[in-house]
Amino acid sequence: MINDTKVESLKRMSYIEGHLSGIRKMISEEKYCVDILKQTYAVRRAIEKLESKLLDGHLHSCVISGVKEGRDDQVLQELLELYNLNSK
Amino acid sequence: MINDTKVESLKRMSYIEGHLSGIRKMISEEKYCVDILKQTYAVRRAIEKLESKLLDGHLHSCVISGVKEGRDDQVLQELLELYNLNSK
Amino acid sequence: MINDTKVESLKRMSYIEGHLSGIRKMISEEKYCVDILKQTYAVRRAIEKLESKLLDGHLHSCVISGVKEGRDDQVLQELLELYNLNSK
Amino acid sequence: MINDTKVESLKRMSYIEGHLSGIRKMISEEKYCVDILKQTYAVRRAIEKLESKLLDGHLHSCVISGVKEGRDDQVLQELLELYNLNSK
Repeated sequence: MINDTKVESLKRMSYIEGHLSGIRKMISEEKYCVDILKQTYAVRRAIEKLESKLLDGHLHSCVISGVKEGRDDQVLQELLELYNLNSK
Repeated sequence: MINDTKVESLKRMSYIEGHLSGIRKMISEEKYCVDILKQTYAVRRAIEKLESKLLDGHLHSCVISGVKEGRDDQVLQELLELYNLNSK
Repeated sequence: MINDTKVESLKRMSYIEGHLSGIRKMISEEKYCVDILKQTYAVRRAIEKLESKLLDGHLHSCVISGVKEGRDDQVLQELLELYNLNSK
Repeated sequence: MINDTKVESLKRMSYIEGHLSGIRKMISEEKYCVDILKQTYAVRRAIEKLESKLLDGHLHSCVISGVKEGRDDQVLQELLELYNLNSK
């Protein structure tokens, strides 16, 4: 993993974990469901941004080296699988 | 909030927080990005299931009472807003 | 179905069908795949906007009357099912 | 565009266009909104499958040749952009 990807991803993870902890508090205190749901949507968006960062790092390291070393089939198959999982 | 919704939601939150903590460990240990991404997708699915549980409780409490008490416009507008946010 | 919902939905359908017909042409002419995919994403967004319009009409007609006539369980169960299908 | 991708994509387009035409009929005949929405969800899933087919072809042609010819930055940037658009 590229170091910049790792540092940035761990920073985003801290943000996500803090956000979730706030949501747990809202549920414990029985806040209005609509307000809780808006927060869970926001946390999913934050996870998607983390994924984009991780994918960016993956493309610029493993995918490039995979294609150059002739492991095209494997790395492209994985990309397609990720894409399809993300659409589900 | 209906008590069953609260208990079930907090249980799901614990699962989600544990899952995220496992993902943080994978990033720290620089596991293969494709494997990490599959886990972040799974955690987003788990959050969506939590949302479905919260929405179910909301529909059967606030929405019903809202419509019966003549606050249709407010509760339905909120539902539509949640639906649109979820599609984004 | 509320008449305004019907008129507006049919107008949106025409737009969507025209958009898709343009995508068919791009595939036939073997345009660059990235450009085609950006168009298919846009058409999905247009379908989501149609759905929001349809749902809005549904909430303000069938859901209200359903709750007022004591068919809460049915209309709320349908809403939850739609919500879950949309998250998939 | 790979010929197999083109043939398969046009076949899927025909299916999607037929499906949409059925949805237009449902709206015209003022069918139950919940039933219409289930069909619009299905058509979006069909478009996503078309996208997966198009992306598969793109990965195995333009992406491979792009990386081998040193245009890594361009093709990977496009992939990331598609991925992010798809998450929206």
